[in-house]
Amino acid sequence: MNEKFMVEAIKEAKKAELIDEVPIGCVIVKDDKIIARGHNLRESKQRSTAHAEIIAIEKACRKLKSWRLEGCSLYVTLEPCPMCSGAILQSRIEHVVYGAKDPKGGCMESCMNMYEVKGFNHYPDVIGGVLEDECGALLKTFFKRKREEKSK
Amino acid sequence: MNEKFMVEAIKEAKKAELIDEVPIGCVIVKDDKIIARGHNLRESKQRSTAHAEIIAIEKACRKLKSWRLEGCSLYVTLEPCPMCSGAILQSRIEHVVYGAKDPKGGCMESCMNMYEVKGFNHYPDVIGGVLEDECGALLKTFFKRKREEKSK
Repeated sequence: MNEKFMVEAIKEAKKAELIDEVPIGCVIVKDDKIIARGHNLRESKQRSTAHAEIIAIEKACRKLKSWRLEGCSLYVTLEPCPMCSGAILQSRIEHVVYGAKDPKGGCMESCMNMYEVKGFNHYPDVIGGVLEDECGALLKTFFKRKREEKSK
Repeated sequence: MNEKFMVEAIKEAKKAELIDEVPIGCVIVKDDKIIARGHNLRESKQRSTAHAEIIAIEKACRKLKSWRLEGCSLYVTLEPCPMCSGAILQSRIEHVVYGAKDPKGGCMESCMNMYEVKGFNHYPDVIGGVLEDECGALLKTFFKRKREEKSK
């Protein structure tokens, strides 16, 4: 089940890649159905908050007409950054599943584990490493191409 | 100077209070001018991301036509939560000034200090406790009134 929805998050990441955005994608699932999708749009929108997870979370809130995304699972191709880890917490999302690790900002294992910090009012379950190689390869290919373009 | 802009953030918090939102307000300043304002709209919008800081950051990005808010200072009446602390980091905001501490979610001193975590690609300067009593009183009065309404 986790892989099935991660494949959908990867499809979103590929949409980002097509428009020259860092390929990161996300879907939010409730009762085994995808209720929201998002992909990274930071450069296109020139908006620092336009990460895949934030876009999907905002769509899910609109869909459910509630800021409380209780009973929802979030699938994302890259380990969430501090902002997105925090947004997951603020939305009361229950389960988080991610693909590749992010040594430069990941807040679920790489730079820190935000959900080990005491004092917050919600803590989701987290599973990392689902389709990790495929999620990571998307990013590696993207950045390799970018470096080649720069050196031309 | 810090107090002058915090007074403006407090004005934003009062706008939130008027519409029965938790009174938290924020302004973003560049070259000594306010370029964006925001107040908490979580309940009105039913959107988990509609915190004062996120609203102000998104407005500032639109104003500067850039996701990079370099040279900007953010003033907020309450110590930022994980999501907003992360959004500040993602926006490359240089200075953060906040009023009251938030023992239930603050990520600049209370629950953790996000900017002591190693591995991120940006770290703002932070000053806390500016007009702390006034910022805190707004929240205390709001929650007291809420409790009284409930017990009626």
